[in-house]
Amino acid sequence: MITSIENKQIKQIMQLNTKAKARKKAGLFAVEGVKMFLEAPDKQIAEVYVSESFYNSEEGRQVLLQKKRECQVVSDKIFSQVCDTLTPQGILTLVHFPEWREEQVFDHKEKTPLILVLDTIQDPGNLGTMIRTGEGAGLTGVVMNKNTVDIFNPKTIRATMGSIYRIPFLITEDLTATIAKMKERGIHTYAAHLKGQKDFYREEFLGPTAFFIGNEGNGLSEEVAALADTYVKIPMEGQVESLNAAIAASVMMYECKRQRDVQA
Amino acid sequence: MITSIENKQIKQIMQLNTKAKARKKAGLFAVEGVKMFLEAPDKQIAEVYVSESFYNSEEGRQVLLQKKRECQVVSDKIFSQVCDTLTPQGILTLVHFPEWREEQVFDHKEKTPLILVLDTIQDPGNLGTMIRTGEGAGLTGVVMNKNTVDIFNPKTIRATMGSIYRIPFLITEDLTATIAKMKERGIHTYAAHLKGQKDFYREEFLGPTAFFIGNEGNGLSEEVAALADTYVKIPMEGQVESLNAAIAASVMMYECKRQRDVQA
Repeated sequence: MITSIENKQIKQIMQLNTKAKARKKAGLFAVEGVKMFLEAPDKQIAEVYVSESFYNSEEGRQVLLQKKRECQVVSDKIFSQVCDTLTPQGILTLVHFPEWREEQVFDHKEKTPLILVLDTIQDPGNLGTMIRTGEGAGLTGVVMNKNTVDIFNPKTIRATMGSIYRIPFLITEDLTATIAKMKERGIHTYAAHLKGQKDFYREEFLGPTAFFIGNEGNGLSEEVAALADTYVKIPMEGQVESLNAAIAASVMMYECKRQRDVQA
Repeated sequence: MITSIENKQIKQIMQLNTKAKARKKAGLFAVEGVKMFLEAPDKQIAEVYVSESFYNSEEGRQVLLQKKRECQVVSDKIFSQVCDTLTPQGILTLVHFPEWREEQVFDHKEKTPLILVLDTIQDPGNLGTMIRTGEGAGLTGVVMNKNTVDIFNPKTIRATMGSIYRIPFLITEDLTATIAKMKERGIHTYAAHLKGQKDFYREEFLGPTAFFIGNEGNGLSEEVAALADTYVKIPMEGQVESLNAAIAASVMMYECKRQRDVQA
């Protein structure tokens, strides 16, 4: 049993929880809780850590049986110190970065593509919420620029509620070039923009569709906005000037889902 | 100029920022920033505090000129200590609680009612975001039970981005009785619920409409859910089991707006 905060593995977990660089170097991220352990794709699981009391509990036994993975037991005190959450559930998993190929992000075998293109999203909760809601709405891929908050940030991971495992994504050095490739594949690109004339729900999203979502404070960069095929408007009553980025993305994605369902 | 953390007014602000009880007793809440000062209804403004450097800045002069309110200058050091935000803008306003009458929450002179009924929402950001998005979507009123997080919590206020001043709301001791009154007024009540058969976007929200939104972890209490005229389903693809409460509310409110706009 691991009982020291000086233990090498414990130190690694703390690094992975706090530093994007450490995650990138190791190609690993940490997820907490039962749901995130059970939903992790088997071949991506690197290591499993459990608290002593979880290991000895009936719940713990049953959870661990479902995956038949070796795990390392950590004293309760050290376990709670290493976790990012305030009330840890007693299980922490190190997961290998997924490796999505471009065609997995852009194409989908069964669904019409619905893609989010994220330009410098800063809030980890917003990013995670977009991925979670997106899975619900039929999102098939996410493209992010390098300046978007790290998708493996523990807060983002938590907000995805497991959707991180299932939604293909791409982090691109050159968002402009990636958008160009998407457009070549016949994906129509929309940006919610002040210059938008038509309300988003008056556009048709039945074909392959991508929505551009910009930074929380500054919106889309002009460079990225200029690449959109169509500007749409999210109409707002009262004195509201903008919506939260995750809300804007969610409202548009569910409108896309509505159209496709009602059409079908 | 106020230069001491022991100053009575400074102590009051700190109480108002941290304690719901203190806010309730004083009938006051604190708002930070230029936008929240400028949008505050004149008759609700109780006191205005500015940092020394804001007071002496060109921006500060111009902002204060717009309202012509007396203000108290606070040394920069004390001002930043008293603020709830990490990077205060230099102006903090104490605002009297609004007093909305029931008919202002339930009826609207110009719009068809669109009401949110909140059952034990716990996250201040979620509450604020629902009010902000709601104003954009044409929300006419909010009803909350006592167990919903305090609407005057600084995090909630901030997330409303000013909509707190404009959306009529009611905090009720007896949500059941309040819902009964709403229904008597001809407001049709919908709950997003696992028992819902019809996707929300296949229902019609052209008449007076209320959406019930439940607690983030536990959903709607059975007692409240039982009062809904109609259960609707928010369809979710993949392995998504639920949406964030603010996202669910936003997606439904914008569907209501869409229907009303397209119909008009």
